[in-house]
Amino acid sequence: MHKLVLIRHGESTWNLDNRFTGWTDVDLTDTGIEQAKNAGRLLREEGYEFDLTCTSVLKRAIHTLWHCLDAMERQWLPVTKSWRLNERHYGALQGLNKGETAKKYGDDQVLIWRRSYDTPPPALDAADERSERSDLRYAGLAEGEVPLTECLKDTVARVMPFWNDTLAPAIRSGQRVMVAAHGNSIRALVKYLDGISDADIVGLNIPNGIPLVYELDANLKPLRSYYLGDAEAAAKAAAAVASQGKG
Amino acid sequence: MHKLVLIRHGESTWNLDNRFTGWTDVDLTDTGIEQAKNAGRLLREEGYEFDLTCTSVLKRAIHTLWHCLDAMERQWLPVTKSWRLNERHYGALQGLNKGETAKKYGDDQVLIWRRSYDTPPPALDAADERSERSDLRYAGLAEGEVPLTECLKDTVARVMPFWNDTLAPAIRSGQRVMVAAHGNSIRALVKYLDGISDADIVGLNIPNGIPLVYELDANLKPLRSYYLGDAEAAAKAAAAVASQGKG
Repeated sequence: MHKLVLIRHGESTWNLDNRFTGWTDVDLTDTGIEQAKNAGRLLREEGYEFDLTCTSVLKRAIHTLWHCLDAMERQWLPVTKSWRLNERHYGALQGLNKGETAKKYGDDQVLIWRRSYDTPPPALDAADERSERSDLRYAGLAEGEVPLTECLKDTVARVMPFWNDTLAPAIRSGQRVMVAAHGNSIRALVKYLDGISDADIVGLNIPNGIPLVYELDANLKPLRSYYLGDAEAAAKAAAAVASQGKG
Repeated sequence: MHKLVLIRHGESTWNLDNRFTGWTDVDLTDTGIEQAKNAGRLLREEGYEFDLTCTSVLKRAIHTLWHCLDAMERQWLPVTKSWRLNERHYGALQGLNKGETAKKYGDDQVLIWRRSYDTPPPALDAADERSERSDLRYAGLAEGEVPLTECLKDTVARVMPFWNDTLAPAIRSGQRVMVAAHGNSIRALVKYLDGISDADIVGLNIPNGIPLVYELDANLKPLRSYYLGDAEAAAKAAAAVASQGKG
């Protein structure tokens, strides 16, 4: 049996401001740092060991991983960073307050952008200073790989090559893998692993900073999955995510 | 022209206690953290960019790199960690105070262990709790690769494959590389690059937390090398390293 552990980053400054973040590289809050350390302590208490850790190229996920590794005294573990694990790109909404956006466009429209599987928010203009086109970390990507907006379907499409090319081969070869990533890149993995429909995946919320464990068989099919630690706390954290952006 | 940047980790808790550290995994002091952040700020101010960063599997070097990357806002850079960049293994002296060791064995003997190129300190017993034989991070190494003591010659011998297999090919391919490591693993690289004799390398001191820049030609021969920032501060820091363990 294989085990895979997924962790959504801890609370970020823009989670706190209730702003659409996407690929904007905001940092963890003090609460987010504490959540990350707690996740690491929990993994250590439960005796988890890893051979490979993976994260996005956004610092709220990277710092979450670093704090986990510190709490586990496993700073030396290899870390693979990939833009494919980034949060869903939120297009022209990046930086806007969720409540204000709801007032401006209406709750229904925002709910479509947030909860539709295949309707992306308005695209960023490539010339917009919020665009990542001139960001060095994406300089090696092919033309068209850096998005100007994404619906969840788009996020799933660019996460899956990372599953196929990196995660699945590593797990199959016996490596124990931890992934520190984002609400929507984790949704993409969960959708694939659990075979969740396009309609249902948009209603599934991933709490911040709580390790989600998948036990997988030899074909990497899930035997079961569960959050580590206090189940009630995980449910509450997921509900808090769901309520963001309502008015 | 290629550039390679080497940084010795910031002050560690055992630098402060004046104890032989070797492979013992002690952390940075607050001063060490500040040195690492300063190194990162200096690199950012001078416009340095990197494609690859490398460090040891010891947290005083890993944390030095992480603080540098934070100060540079380059958390997303790839990091390769290797035991080959570890500090020289200090054998049975690991954990002992340098002053007390000098009183016990005499200044001359300690100076031989510290400054001879090919005389290792007494070996650790493999059963000693200070031995790294059961440390998970070295579990993948071949029998005999985990040392029980090292002279500088031994350290050079196990650092060189990392130069040949990882650093040199990366630099040759045009990657800009930063290495955060230790006094003796950096000495090994400097010895090779500058063609320093066995006799002279033991007298060369690497200051903590100050970026050492090598400008290399197409054959990776040094055109020049220099410490970034305040030259006087670098000389003072190197002198402080040299005076450790005198009585």
